[in-house]
Amino acid sequence: MSAARQVLALTGGVGGAKLALGLQRILPPHTLTVAVNTGDDFEHLGLAISPDLDTTLYTLAGLADPEQGWGRARETWTFMEELARFSEETWFRLGDKDLALHIERTRRLAAGEPLEFITQEFGSRLGVATQVLPMTNDRVRTIIHTQEGPLPFQEYFVRRQCAPAVTAIRYEGAESASATTSTKDLVRHADLIAIVICPSNPYLSIAPLLAIPQWRALLAAAQVPVIAVSPLIGNQAIKGPTVKIMRELGLDASPVTIARQYGELLDGFVLDRADAHLARDIEMPTFLAPLLMLTLEAKERLAREVLRFAQSLRRPQYRSAS
Amino acid sequence: MSAARQVLALTGGVGGAKLALGLQRILPPHTLTVAVNTGDDFEHLGLAISPDLDTTLYTLAGLADPEQGWGRARETWTFMEELARFSEETWFRLGDKDLALHIERTRRLAAGEPLEFITQEFGSRLGVATQVLPMTNDRVRTIIHTQEGPLPFQEYFVRRQCAPAVTAIRYEGAESASATTSTKDLVRHADLIAIVICPSNPYLSIAPLLAIPQWRALLAAAQVPVIAVSPLIGNQAIKGPTVKIMRELGLDASPVTIARQYGELLDGFVLDRADAHLARDIEMPTFLAPLLMLTLEAKERLAREVLRFAQSLRRPQYRSAS
Repeated sequence: MSAARQVLALTGGVGGAKLALGLQRILPPHTLTVAVNTGDDFEHLGLAISPDLDTTLYTLAGLADPEQGWGRARETWTFMEELARFSEETWFRLGDKDLALHIERTRRLAAGEPLEFITQEFGSRLGVATQVLPMTNDRVRTIIHTQEGPLPFQEYFVRRQCAPAVTAIRYEGAESASATTSTKDLVRHADLIAIVICPSNPYLSIAPLLAIPQWRALLAAAQVPVIAVSPLIGNQAIKGPTVKIMRELGLDASPVTIARQYGELLDGFVLDRADAHLARDIEMPTFLAPLLMLTLEAKERLAREVLRFAQSLRRPQYRSAS
Repeated sequence: MSAARQVLALTGGVGGAKLALGLQRILPPHTLTVAVNTGDDFEHLGLAISPDLDTTLYTLAGLADPEQGWGRARETWTFMEELARFSEETWFRLGDKDLALHIERTRRLAAGEPLEFITQEFGSRLGVATQVLPMTNDRVRTIIHTQEGPLPFQEYFVRRQCAPAVTAIRYEGAESASATTSTKDLVRHADLIAIVICPSNPYLSIAPLLAIPQWRALLAAAQVPVIAVSPLIGNQAIKGPTVKIMRELGLDASPVTIARQYGELLDGFVLDRADAHLARDIEMPTFLAPLLMLTLEAKERLAREVLRFAQSLRRPQYRSAS
């Protein structure tokens, strides 16, 4: 692969960031762009928090906590302990190291800088050779409708630990949001060779991006293969509440459901080897690979196989050219 | 002294807070109110910082760093170290513990709460039995005019370490600022027995308050003795740049200058014992006491003597009654 060839990955937080790290490690520097979900961004204690952007940045910079997958390694919690003197708002834990990003991002957003630019600057300050971008500079907020009523994403995910049963998910602001200019340029770029949807939660991490009409149009018009990697192995999520949410929404918790949900956006779907028998139910080319990425080697191997699969595909005839 | 009798102290940061602590220790709980300079408040990294309020709160709560007199004891600096990755704005050091107050204050100010209420709440959360109040809820900003041009207070004081020669000092916003309702009520309260101007820097810490017309009127109309404690011993400041600033402004660096500057606002002036010979140049009752407060006992002793002196005074005839 020549140094100029570019790959675009779409991702949410922890799960997707693992494959993004694998891709970063096997690709030449500055040939990977990661567009990250910002539907779970929120304002907390007056700070602009972007959990998935930060997880991606920390993971790609080698600074993420290896145990939990999010937050900083060797984090300290002095601020949080002290905050408890003055505030009851301690359910979302902000580490002392982590605060630096939140405070600096909040300051720059207030000064009118677009999130895209701030994030690029953070990546460059952290020495990350991958372009990490928010899915949009506009405000999109994932709202989880539950049997207890609608909950802002972090209230559902962190404060309530995903306990309330989900009845619907809405992506507020997505209809009128735009993709970033950097992403639009990249998708139309002659050197782009593949678009990879990482194995992030389809409903919480990927759907907010796909709810932006401009993103759907970009993916539909892309002249390169678009593939997705299953976030499920059999009927088990590798991480997080994917299966619980699918069942609550009345969906069959299977990679087949997810492949069909992405549907026409995709040219190919990557299944775990254990799910070979599901391939016949998926109406597009599939590829089998070990999806568990417990080691750095496993992340690199999956990244390599995913790119090999993408390059083996042609953009099908029924797609419209841009 | 009965439990109901009230004392009001006016103070800036470190030096004044020492006497405030002495007063708190010898007075019954909830009989001391401290009105604190907010002219050196500023917005930094998007946070609302109130250095003198925090120094006073930390000192009265027993949480201040005993070495430097400001900031928190046993502070940690993880945030600051991390911020240096993302920002060059590291000249004003914010400890991890200290951040809790700044973030919570910023959030509440943005929600429209007055600084007075926020500060009262912080004091109560910290278990401080003294009412700590900002001098005003309005925005007053001390601007130091120097031979290098005008500098916002913290740029002069912290970033430039008071190096540029001062040509004038302005208190932006003071003309149109109001005293807080709590203070106005207290000054008119029948149980008030004394108003004490603490040995803070007259130009940087006390003058911003005195530049508020409502405060001058309140002090002039007060029916109780108003006394000040000299921040100088001979021609030495106990702490900080008082002497340097006085010389740069062409003033004689002497307690006499300061007594005359406060002038008619005062009914009495407290000098260090070493300055007995200066008493004859001060046109009001003076009192000699040891002004160095290196120990807790010294703070308590000075507090006792200051109150005894105040109670020995009558409000002079030439004062107008309110």
